[in-house]
Amino acid sequence: MLLQKFYIDKIITTALEEDIHYVDVTTDYLLDDSHTAKAYYVAKDDGVLCGIDIAKRVFELVGGDFQMEILIKDGETVKKGDIIARISGSTRTLLKGERTALNILQHMSGIATATNRCAKLVEGTNAHITDTRKTLPGLRQLQKYAVTVGGGKNHRYNLSDGAMLKDNHVDAYGGITGAVAALRKKIGHMVKIELEVRNLEELQEALETGVEIIMLDNMSCEDMKKAVEITAGRALLEASGNVTEANIREIAETGVDIISLGALTHSVKCFDISMRIEK
Amino acid sequence: MLLQKFYIDKIITTALEEDIHYVDVTTDYLLDDSHTAKAYYVAKDDGVLCGIDIAKRVFELVGGDFQMEILIKDGETVKKGDIIARISGSTRTLLKGERTALNILQHMSGIATATNRCAKLVEGTNAHITDTRKTLPGLRQLQKYAVTVGGGKNHRYNLSDGAMLKDNHVDAYGGITGAVAALRKKIGHMVKIELEVRNLEELQEALETGVEIIMLDNMSCEDMKKAVEITAGRALLEASGNVTEANIREIAETGVDIISLGALTHSVKCFDISMRIEK
Amino acid sequence: MLLQKFYIDKIITTALEEDIHYVDVTTDYLLDDSHTAKAYYVAKDDGVLCGIDIAKRVFELVGGDFQMEILIKDGETVKKGDIIARISGSTRTLLKGERTALNILQHMSGIATATNRCAKLVEGTNAHITDTRKTLPGLRQLQKYAVTVGGGKNHRYNLSDGAMLKDNHVDAYGGITGAVAALRKKIGHMVKIELEVRNLEELQEALETGVEIIMLDNMSCEDMKKAVEITAGRALLEASGNVTEANIREIAETGVDIISLGALTHSVKCFDISMRIEK
Amino acid sequence: MLLQKFYIDKIITTALEEDIHYVDVTTDYLLDDSHTAKAYYVAKDDGVLCGIDIAKRVFELVGGDFQMEILIKDGETVKKGDIIARISGSTRTLLKGERTALNILQHMSGIATATNRCAKLVEGTNAHITDTRKTLPGLRQLQKYAVTVGGGKNHRYNLSDGAMLKDNHVDAYGGITGAVAALRKKIGHMVKIELEVRNLEELQEALETGVEIIMLDNMSCEDMKKAVEITAGRALLEASGNVTEANIREIAETGVDIISLGALTHSVKCFDISMRIEK
Amino acid sequence: MLLQKFYIDKIITTALEEDIHYVDVTTDYLLDDSHTAKAYYVAKDDGVLCGIDIAKRVFELVGGDFQMEILIKDGETVKKGDIIARISGSTRTLLKGERTALNILQHMSGIATATNRCAKLVEGTNAHITDTRKTLPGLRQLQKYAVTVGGGKNHRYNLSDGAMLKDNHVDAYGGITGAVAALRKKIGHMVKIELEVRNLEELQEALETGVEIIMLDNMSCEDMKKAVEITAGRALLEASGNVTEANIREIAETGVDIISLGALTHSVKCFDISMRIEK
Amino acid sequence: MLLQKFYIDKIITTALEEDIHYVDVTTDYLLDDSHTAKAYYVAKDDGVLCGIDIAKRVFELVGGDFQMEILIKDGETVKKGDIIARISGSTRTLLKGERTALNILQHMSGIATATNRCAKLVEGTNAHITDTRKTLPGLRQLQKYAVTVGGGKNHRYNLSDGAMLKDNHVDAYGGITGAVAALRKKIGHMVKIELEVRNLEELQEALETGVEIIMLDNMSCEDMKKAVEITAGRALLEASGNVTEANIREIAETGVDIISLGALTHSVKCFDISMRIEK
Repeated sequence: MLLQKFYIDKIITTALEEDIHYVDVTTDYLLDDSHTAKAYYVAKDDGVLCGIDIAKRVFELVGGDFQMEILIKDGETVKKGDIIARISGSTRTLLKGERTALNILQHMSGIATATNRCAKLVEGTNAHITDTRKTLPGLRQLQKYAVTVGGGKNHRYNLSDGAMLKDNHVDAYGGITGAVAALRKKIGHMVKIELEVRNLEELQEALETGVEIIMLDNMSCEDMKKAVEITAGRALLEASGNVTEANIREIAETGVDIISLGALTHSVKCFDISMRIEK
Repeated sequence: MLLQKFYIDKIITTALEEDIHYVDVTTDYLLDDSHTAKAYYVAKDDGVLCGIDIAKRVFELVGGDFQMEILIKDGETVKKGDIIARISGSTRTLLKGERTALNILQHMSGIATATNRCAKLVEGTNAHITDTRKTLPGLRQLQKYAVTVGGGKNHRYNLSDGAMLKDNHVDAYGGITGAVAALRKKIGHMVKIELEVRNLEELQEALETGVEIIMLDNMSCEDMKKAVEITAGRALLEASGNVTEANIREIAETGVDIISLGALTHSVKCFDISMRIEK
Repeated sequence: MLLQKFYIDKIITTALEEDIHYVDVTTDYLLDDSHTAKAYYVAKDDGVLCGIDIAKRVFELVGGDFQMEILIKDGETVKKGDIIARISGSTRTLLKGERTALNILQHMSGIATATNRCAKLVEGTNAHITDTRKTLPGLRQLQKYAVTVGGGKNHRYNLSDGAMLKDNHVDAYGGITGAVAALRKKIGHMVKIELEVRNLEELQEALETGVEIIMLDNMSCEDMKKAVEITAGRALLEASGNVTEANIREIAETGVDIISLGALTHSVKCFDISMRIEK
Repeated sequence: MLLQKFYIDKIITTALEEDIHYVDVTTDYLLDDSHTAKAYYVAKDDGVLCGIDIAKRVFELVGGDFQMEILIKDGETVKKGDIIARISGSTRTLLKGERTALNILQHMSGIATATNRCAKLVEGTNAHITDTRKTLPGLRQLQKYAVTVGGGKNHRYNLSDGAMLKDNHVDAYGGITGAVAALRKKIGHMVKIELEVRNLEELQEALETGVEIIMLDNMSCEDMKKAVEITAGRALLEASGNVTEANIREIAETGVDIISLGALTHSVKCFDISMRIEK
Repeated sequence: MLLQKFYIDKIITTALEEDIHYVDVTTDYLLDDSHTAKAYYVAKDDGVLCGIDIAKRVFELVGGDFQMEILIKDGETVKKGDIIARISGSTRTLLKGERTALNILQHMSGIATATNRCAKLVEGTNAHITDTRKTLPGLRQLQKYAVTVGGGKNHRYNLSDGAMLKDNHVDAYGGITGAVAALRKKIGHMVKIELEVRNLEELQEALETGVEIIMLDNMSCEDMKKAVEITAGRALLEASGNVTEANIREIAETGVDIISLGALTHSVKCFDISMRIEK
Repeated sequence: MLLQKFYIDKIITTALEEDIHYVDVTTDYLLDDSHTAKAYYVAKDDGVLCGIDIAKRVFELVGGDFQMEILIKDGETVKKGDIIARISGSTRTLLKGERTALNILQHMSGIATATNRCAKLVEGTNAHITDTRKTLPGLRQLQKYAVTVGGGKNHRYNLSDGAMLKDNHVDAYGGITGAVAALRKKIGHMVKIELEVRNLEELQEALETGVEIIMLDNMSCEDMKKAVEITAGRALLEASGNVTEANIREIAETGVDIISLGALTHSVKCFDISMRIEK
């Protein structure tokens, strides 16, 4: 897993502090420290798994003895009824970590699964799928990682590592050409500029500035096709706005290079997984 | 707003660190500190607003001079096209805080809106809507608050403040009656016990233990009706599992007291809001 | 031990930062890293031990090689002169962790010991002992855990997990009956309400509201006896205010269910323990 | 107040997180944000006040509008029944901050009061009162500050800023003279060395090393008198161990320079103060 | 100033905790809270000022009343003897914040000054100056900001926001062409690739991969000239390794686009500034 | 190594968060988790090594399997070309930790090396070398430790643990004698007082106050010699201000006890070390 251990541990600790808090008045007061059990994680839907190493780390941070065997790894396909992992050991550990582990695993797998559906829908076209900065507070790393596991790529991570001149910026500055020139004077040589255009006239002006990427905001597929022709490879083109699984193939077939979807991270449907204690 | 300032500030700071990081290479490099603008927040859907004070606090933590007038408050109904707030001041402040403010506002309003739809669907019945512990890491306070703003109530906040004997606990301990007795020896006098039952036989046993709340797990509406009759007010009854907007009214009409929905917090559809700079 | 590892580690780290700070100019400058010693912990009074696992964890966080054998566990009785634990290994580790380990161990054992004395004094009555929210900043978990180790139970943990209408609340709202009704509209189904009454008239009104617990504030034992009769099991009764080891038995014999003592946590007499290096 | 704002805010925030947590289900659900009240702090005992500025800061961090007038300042004498401060404003603010403010104020005033009693008992002698490192985790600054407010002085703050060769160090190294010499090679020129001696023979050896301070551990008053004579001003002498209000005057009259008491911080009796809402 | 307030406050708080710690035993014990003074900051060398707003913020976080008038701003030239700022108010505030403010101000101005000298040395050529990732732990934002204030640009901020294939990467993967192709499959569209080459043969291969930037590692000026000719604008060229003020002009005149210097941040000579209390 | 593990881990984590951030888009995207390599650290200059254990800890916190053999320890002399350590294991671990490990190791070794040169220059005289409080924010422990490794001693660590009456303090109070007397009333018995004097007249007055150390600020060597004679052992003398490797021997020969150099920590020249992957 690519995420940094110190980031993962911080997220998990926050989650455990929220959920266990002082003691688990049910589990801790009911069962002895020596009580043991076996359990398994089972998928209740079809999709792409993501976050299983983090789920395991949850139990390590809860503490107590346990063994966890991971049967399906991040990025692998999972079918309804598949056993994802088996865990055995301290019942307290299993029950106190259960909800936190599932909350993370289900959210990340939900993202990976939705991304994967989109990625498959555009297969064979020029387009690849990316996320946006429309993420939930504190969860950007988890969410962006899940997008890559699902087969998408990451758009810029934050406001520091890529320049995007949106219409608000252009309007505030007073014009595309001037804005790009002003930006070039200051940004470092590792930073790309992406420019949002609202119509084909703006596209023409954008192309002359030499920006690396142009975002076509909420354009019709017809206009996007024209944009691809006009651009003729002089810049990468990103389709953005109102992209759904229903229209994503059509958009991809216009020839754009990138299709970005806020919904991958701002409107996640969790992927259903259960932990079941074996009797 | 009921949430504590020190919690809010921690969440926002984390989000701003994720999003602004070092500098906003677009805004900071394009526009002077003295550049000013006016903007407004506009709803792009119908629903219940939630998080507007937090959105305002985002800009305060970004820093810089600005004025923000809130036109619609937390808990108020909002229609597509409604102006939610007006903000004016440093363009840098407005553009650097925009995404973080919207990410929070849209998520919380999404929860409040979905909760509100459910609450309205059960109006006139005995039932009220609650959330669960199926929340996202670090966001439990934001999410549980949004549920109350939407007209729901909060289930237990964490594992410390309410005892829930789920089937896993009962199986691990070896029986309902014994488990409740064991728990009573240790829990404090402020803690209620809720007990999950899988069928009407277990319900009978549960009632004899005197637990305050009984959760009916994934029961048919028919069984829930019987459960209500059998219980006859001796305990509160909570319906849980596979509740949707399609079946929630029918469930409520069985006479249960509480209907809990994990989806309110684990599968949030964001409520669409835009910030637009006035030209 | 029930406390969460991530909480314990945070408390200990804070304490070590306070105490060791940069280097231990005595130990680190006097003795080599390779110097080893053996030591033992000895009780200098009679009581109930609490915090020994945390004491061990202190040395782990100091770092360095050591072995620690725990001879007396949390909750066990200890007599003056008893050897509580033996530790051997790096002398630097032993001496640098000594004070922090003792500060925690002595405080927690002090609480457990005082609680235990109270619990024994009420044995055979209906009453059990609880703590309050009168704890020291940052130490609530340590302190509440020590109360349970001494044989007490925990009152509500914080302002979120139990409702207590004290006289200030009732006066501010304007009446007991109205206040309870107002609260019921908002609190979740897992939250109990406790109501403070100042006299038997208020008790009567309180009983009609159906609150789960009634606190008898600073009442005479005579009045508490009457309160028990009047209540007749319709609510739990908590005696609070000016409870001492001298009067606690008499209070318990009035028939109240709960006796809460702020002094268990706000006025702790530390339990004396020494670490002695063996020559 | 000498304590640093960033330290104070950290302690208070921790305490508020412990106590308010998510919402105050009593106050927040009972009273509107617009409800106001007046209250006052009243002493229920005689002593020395400490921590009143921190108490005020608690309410600022809770948030909401309020005014607080401080009538008695840190270090001033307070009599039972004295009004310490008046506060008016948002009832929510007053009630949500009440317990946290009192917990801190009562603990610090308890320390200042006990210190002050000791300081008065030794008035007219050569001795001054100091604290030790026997403090509670996370509270060292609060506690050491309260000692100074009560008229004591601070012993070393931590293991970095003063060298103390205790009997364990001497035994581990193998002799007083060698240990002092070894230490001198490494410690900086701003660090003093204090040496613990168990009897008058060790005192003789200690004096020849030229250490700045010598601690007389658990010596009889008779021996301490002899120690003062033998020392004849060549080092400061600290009496330590089993010091109580009963014997402190006698100890001071032996002529020692410093009397240190662990009980000032490890066994604090809180100073009783109430907040009362005015009707 | 472009740096985020929450970052600045964290750095300053850490520095104040290091420096003031518990109390300033000199200032706090010598002078009353009511004592006031005036002071000024004076340059003791020629250079470019950087960090003055942060210096002011130090005193705000120390607390206490003060006024600070900034006479020279970040990025402005300063001559030996120039008054940089005047500050008046609580003497305690002035003296307790003095060292921390100066430590930051002198370090940042040292970086800005050295950067500025380099930037001036290459004026009129094609080259601009950049920093590297050779920064001090925790100080990257301060240091990179100071580079821009001095007239340099920032190289990539971290390992996330720009791809650099160094010789180690190429060797580990087994060849330039393959490595670039492998990377392209995974990186997002906002990320540029820079490739390190050790000689002109590698440059040829690098150019065919189409990477955006090529780093010439420790090449002679003669080879760099050839590299510029061979490249002919197909990629940006960065000179790196053993750049000093003595040879930077010659390097710039080879026609490279970027000259990066680790020494700007890893070997900073502080810029001398004093705070003087006016008598 | 004397530094505390919890401090080290905090510094390293901060540094890794700065440098790795989300993912290493080069290493993580290029090489598999199973790719392994061998590397070594080689000195590129002569000096004294410092920080090698911290460098090793960096890789542990990055995570992944690796072995590291340390060939040269903190405080040992290192020659250009010497192999300092060998490391083998996950290539990802090696490459992702490389920069952070080197940034720390080079900075600390730079300090140790410069200190060592100064310490050697004064060998045979009475003087020893110390640092100052002129350190970089967050790095004081690392820097002060490196000074001791290089053969220097530490001056006071912060404003709490030693009193220094500088000219600003004396002027603000109004006179040397009064200031020392005022301070003595408040400081604890473990705190030494150092007093700055600007000329020999002030020295005379200082000596009568009995302060333990007197700082000679920017005095000529001639005056310092006189100061040594006048003082005649009644106080330690510290030379401070404008000390360089060129004049340090001459200063030491005046007979002063301490020579402090801000440049050891405020103007560090990093010690050059490379990590090289073995082919």
